Amino acid sequence: MDKKNVFETFDKIGEYWSPRAVAEANGQLVKVCKIKGEFVWHHHENEDEIFLVLKGSLIIQYRDREDVILGPGDIHTVPRGVEHAPKCDDEVMCLLFEPGETAHTGNVVTNMTKSVESQRAHLAS
Amino acid sequence: MDKKNVFETFDKIGEYWSPRAVAEANGQLVKVCKIKGEFVWHHHENEDEIFLVLKGSLIIQYRDREDVILGPGDIHTVPRGVEHAPKCDDEVMCLLFEPGETAHTGNVVTNMTKSVESQRAHLAS
Repeated sequence: MDKKNVFETFDKIGEYWSPRAVAEANGQLVKVCKIKGEFVWHHHENEDEIFLVLKGSLIIQYRDREDVILGPGDIHTVPRGVEHAPKCDDEVMCLLFEPGETAHTGNVVTNMTKSVESQRAHLAS
Repeated sequence: MDKKNVFETFDKIGEYWSPRAVAEANGQLVKVCKIKGEFVWHHHENEDEIFLVLKGSLIIQYRDREDVILGPGDIHTVPRGVEHAPKCDDEVMCLLFEPGETAHTGNVVTNMTKSVESQRAHLAS
Protein backbone atom coordinates (compact mmCIF):
# COMPACT_ATOMS: atom_id res chain seq x y z
CA MET A 1 0.00 0.00 0.00
CA ASP A 2 1.30 3.42 -0.93
CA LYS A 3 0.11 5.27 2.13
CA LYS A 4 -1.21 4.71 5.62
CA ASN A 5 -3.24 6.96 7.89
CA VAL A 6 -1.85 7.50 11.37
CA PHE A 7 -5.27 8.27 12.92
CA GLU A 8 -6.94 5.20 11.40
CA THR A 9 -3.99 3.09 12.54
CA PHE A 10 -4.32 4.51 16.05
CA ASP A 11 -8.01 3.59 16.16
CA LYS A 12 -7.20 -0.02 15.22
CA ILE A 13 -4.60 -0.54 17.95
CA GLY A 14 -6.16 -2.70 20.63
CA GLU A 15 -3.34 -2.76 23.17
CA TYR A 16 -1.46 -0.01 24.97
CA TRP A 17 2.34 0.17 24.56
CA SER A 18 2.31 -1.82 21.32
CA PRO A 19 3.78 0.47 18.61
CA ARG A 20 2.79 -0.10 15.01
CA ALA A 21 5.13 0.93 12.17
CA VAL A 22 3.46 2.89 9.37
CA ALA A 23 6.40 4.12 7.29
CA GLU A 24 10.04 3.28 6.66
CA ALA A 25 12.84 5.36 5.16
CA ASN A 26 16.62 5.29 5.36
CA GLY A 27 16.53 2.47 7.91
CA GLN A 28 14.23 4.49 10.20
CA LEU A 29 10.66 3.67 11.16
CA VAL A 30 7.71 5.90 12.00
CA LYS A 31 5.49 4.16 14.54
CA VAL A 32 2.02 4.97 15.87
CA CYS A 33 1.63 4.42 19.62
CA LYS A 34 -1.44 4.21 21.83
CA ILE A 35 -0.30 4.53 25.42
CA LYS A 36 -1.67 4.93 28.92
CA GLY A 37 -0.06 4.45 32.31
CA GLU A 38 3.66 4.16 32.96
CA PHE A 39 6.28 2.42 30.84
CA VAL A 40 9.38 0.64 32.08
CA TRP A 41 12.55 2.65 32.77
CA HIS A 42 15.09 1.94 30.03
CA HIS A 43 17.59 3.45 27.63
CA HIS A 44 18.65 2.80 24.04
CA GLU A 45 22.41 2.44 23.82
CA ASN A 46 22.80 3.51 20.20
CA GLU A 47 19.54 5.11 19.13
CA ASP A 48 18.01 8.55 19.61
CA GLU A 49 14.20 8.45 19.75
CA ILE A 50 11.84 11.22 18.63
CA PHE A 51 8.40 11.55 20.26
CA LEU A 52 5.65 13.57 18.58
CA VAL A 53 2.41 13.78 20.57
CA LEU A 54 -0.79 14.15 18.52
CA LYS A 55 -3.45 13.64 21.24
CA GLY A 56 -3.26 13.92 25.02
CA SER A 57 -0.45 14.81 27.40
CA LEU A 58 2.69 12.71 27.86
CA ILE A 59 5.43 13.03 30.46
CA ILE A 60 8.92 11.83 29.52
CA GLN A 61 10.44 11.07 32.91
CA TYR A 62 14.22 11.30 33.26
CA ARG A 63 16.58 10.28 36.05
CA ASP A 64 19.33 12.80 35.35
CA ARG A 65 17.40 15.85 34.06
CA GLU A 66 14.05 17.56 34.32
CA ASP A 67 11.00 15.69 33.01
CA VAL A 68 9.54 16.93 29.73
CA ILE A 69 5.78 17.36 29.37
CA LEU A 70 4.47 17.02 25.82
CA GLY A 71 1.04 18.13 24.57
CA PRO A 72 -0.52 17.94 21.09
CA GLY A 73 2.03 18.96 18.45
CA ASP A 74 5.01 18.85 20.82
CA ILE A 75 8.09 17.06 19.49
CA HIS A 76 11.05 15.98 21.60
CA THR A 77 14.17 13.84 21.15
CA VAL A 78 15.29 11.37 23.81
CA PRO A 79 19.05 11.11 23.29
CA ARG A 80 20.74 7.72 23.05
CA GLY A 81 22.07 6.35 26.33
CA VAL A 82 19.71 8.39 28.50
CA GLU A 83 17.40 6.52 30.88
CA HIS A 84 13.75 7.49 30.52
CA ALA A 85 10.21 6.27 31.20
CA PRO A 86 7.14 7.68 29.41
CA LYS A 87 4.06 8.16 31.59
CA CYS A 88 0.50 9.44 31.07
CA ASP A 89 -2.63 9.38 33.21
CA ASP A 90 -4.99 9.47 30.21
CA GLU A 91 -4.69 7.88 26.77
CA VAL A 92 -2.12 9.44 24.46
CA MET A 93 -1.55 9.15 20.72
CA CYS A 94 2.05 9.71 19.75
CA LEU A 95 4.39 8.99 16.88
CA LEU A 96 7.88 7.57 17.36
CA PHE A 97 10.74 8.03 14.89
CA GLU A 98 13.64 5.70 15.45
CA PRO A 99 15.96 3.24 13.70
CA GLY A 100 14.31 0.01 12.59
CA GLU A 101 16.44 -2.09 14.92
CA THR A 102 15.54 -0.12 18.07
CA ALA A 103 14.55 -2.48 20.89
CA HIS A 104 11.17 -1.58 22.39
CA THR A 105 12.36 -1.50 26.00
CA GLY A 106 16.00 -0.81 25.19
CA ASN A 107 18.43 -2.35 27.66
CA VAL A 108 15.79 -4.28 29.62
CA VAL A 109 13.29 -7.02 28.81
CA THR A 110 9.95 -7.13 30.63
CA ASN A 111 6.46 -8.47 30.03
CA MET A 112 5.76 -5.15 28.25
CA THR A 113 8.45 -5.77 25.64
CA LYS A 114 7.26 -6.08 22.02
CA SER A 115 9.49 -7.59 19.36
CA VAL A 116 10.83 -5.57 16.45
CA GLU A 117 8.92 -7.97 14.17
CA SER A 118 5.55 -7.40 15.85
CA GLN A 119 5.98 -3.63 15.49
CA ARG A 120 6.76 -4.05 11.77
CA ALA A 121 3.98 -6.58 11.10
CA HIS A 122 1.54 -4.10 9.53
CA LEU A 123 4.08 -2.13 7.52
CA ALA A 124 3.70 -4.11 4.31
CA SER A 125 -0.07 -4.61 4.55
CA MET B 1 15.08 24.01 24.04
CA ASP B 2 13.84 20.55 24.97
CA LYS B 3 10.77 20.55 22.80
CA LYS B 4 9.14 22.36 19.90
CA ASN B 5 5.55 22.50 18.78
CA VAL B 6 4.89 21.64 15.15
CA PHE B 7 1.65 23.68 14.96
CA GLU B 8 3.22 26.81 16.50
CA THR B 9 6.19 26.40 14.15
CA PHE B 10 3.84 26.13 11.19
CA ASP B 11 2.06 29.36 12.19
CA LYS B 12 5.39 31.21 12.29
CA ILE B 13 6.51 30.16 8.81
CA GLY B 14 6.11 33.14 6.50
CA GLU B 15 7.12 31.60 3.20
CA TYR B 16 5.82 28.60 1.29
CA TRP B 17 8.26 25.78 0.42
CA SER B 18 10.70 26.75 3.17
CA PRO B 19 10.95 23.72 5.52
CA ARG B 20 11.91 24.32 9.13
CA ALA B 21 13.64 21.56 11.14
CA VAL B 22 12.14 20.94 14.59
CA ALA B 23 13.88 17.74 15.72
CA GLU B 24 17.00 15.72 14.97
CA ALA B 25 17.84 12.10 15.74
CA ASN B 26 20.25 9.56 14.27
CA GLY B 27 21.28 11.97 11.53
CA GLN B 28 17.67 12.46 10.44
CA LEU B 29 15.61 15.66 10.62
CA VAL B 30 11.90 16.24 11.15
CA LYS B 31 10.84 19.36 9.27
CA VAL B 32 7.63 21.38 9.31
CA CYS B 33 6.51 22.57 5.86
CA LYS B 34 3.95 25.17 4.80
CA ILE B 35 3.27 24.65 1.12
CA LYS B 36 0.94 25.81 -1.63
CA GLY B 37 1.17 25.50 -5.39
CA GLU B 38 3.53 23.23 -7.27
CA PHE B 39 7.12 22.34 -6.41
CA VAL B 40 9.93 21.63 -8.85
CA TRP B 41 10.35 18.11 -10.29
CA HIS B 42 13.37 16.46 -8.67
CA HIS B 43 14.71 13.33 -7.05
CA HIS B 44 17.04 12.54 -4.16
CA GLU B 45 19.76 10.17 -5.27
CA ASN B 46 20.48 8.61 -1.85
CA GLU B 47 17.63 9.59 0.46
CA ASP B 48 14.11 8.31 1.00
CA GLU B 49 11.70 11.03 2.11
CA ILE B 50 8.64 10.55 4.34
CA PHE B 51 5.69 12.93 4.00
CA LEU B 52 3.07 13.17 6.79
CA VAL B 53 0.20 15.54 6.04
CA LEU B 54 -1.42 17.21 9.06
CA LYS B 55 -3.67 19.79 7.34
CA GLY B 56 -5.01 20.00 3.79
CA SER B 57 -4.62 17.77 0.77
CA LEU B 58 -1.32 17.13 -1.00
CA ILE B 59 -0.64 15.38 -4.29
CA ILE B 60 2.72 13.67 -4.75
CA GLN B 61 3.08 13.64 -8.52
CA TYR B 62 5.22 10.90 -10.08
CA ARG B 63 6.54 10.39 -13.60
CA ASP B 64 6.77 6.59 -13.52
CA ARG B 65 3.86 5.61 -11.25
CA GLU B 66 0.44 6.75 -10.13
CA ASP B 67 0.22 10.00 -8.16
CA VAL B 68 -0.47 9.66 -4.44
CA ILE B 69 -3.07 11.91 -2.78
CA LEU B 70 -2.48 12.57 0.92
CA GLY B 71 -5.03 13.98 3.39
CA PRO B 72 -4.73 14.70 7.12
CA GLY B 73 -2.93 11.85 8.88
CA ASP B 74 -1.74 10.19 5.67
CA ILE B 75 1.91 9.14 5.62
CA HIS B 76 3.86 8.15 2.50
CA THR B 77 7.48 7.44 1.59
CA VAL B 78 9.01 8.79 -1.62
CA PRO B 79 11.78 6.28 -2.43
CA ARG B 80 15.29 7.48 -3.24
CA GLY B 81 15.99 8.00 -6.92
CA VAL B 82 12.34 8.48 -7.88
CA GLU B 83 11.38 11.72 -9.60
CA HIS B 84 8.49 13.53 -7.90
CA ALA B 85 6.84 16.94 -7.53
CA PRO B 86 4.50 17.82 -4.63
CA LYS B 87 1.47 19.92 -5.56
CA CYS B 88 -1.52 21.40 -3.73
CA ASP B 89 -4.19 23.93 -4.68
CA ASP B 90 -4.75 25.08 -1.08
CA GLU B 91 -2.32 25.52 1.80
CA VAL B 92 -0.98 22.30 3.31
CA MET B 93 0.84 21.58 6.56
CA CYS B 94 3.07 18.56 6.34
CA LEU B 95 6.02 17.05 8.14
CA LEU B 96 9.07 15.69 6.33
CA PHE B 97 11.40 13.04 7.75
CA GLU B 98 14.69 12.75 5.93
CA PRO B 99 18.45 12.64 6.43
CA GLY B 100 20.01 15.90 7.56
CA GLU B 101 22.05 16.23 4.39
CA THR B 102 19.05 15.91 2.03
CA ALA B 103 19.12 18.67 -0.60
CA HIS B 104 15.84 20.59 -0.74
CA THR B 105 15.34 20.23 -4.48
CA GLY B 106 17.44 17.09 -4.84
CA ASN B 107 19.25 16.87 -8.16
CA VAL B 108 18.24 20.32 -9.40
CA VAL B 109 18.81 23.88 -8.19
CA THR B 110 16.14 26.52 -8.80
CA ASN B 111 15.04 29.80 -7.27
CA MET B 112 12.88 27.69 -4.91
CA THR B 113 15.92 25.89 -3.45
CA LYS B 114 16.57 26.44 0.28
CA SER B 115 19.95 25.58 1.78
CA VAL B 116 20.37 22.82 4.34
CA GLU B 117 21.57 25.51 6.78
CA SER B 118 18.47 27.68 6.40
CA GLN B 119 16.25 24.66 7.12
CA ARG B 120 18.26 23.90 10.28
CA ALA B 121 18.45 27.51 11.47
CA HIS B 122 15.71 27.25 14.10
CA LEU B 123 16.63 23.81 15.41
CA ALA B 124 18.84 25.02 18.25
CA SER B 125 16.72 28.03 19.20
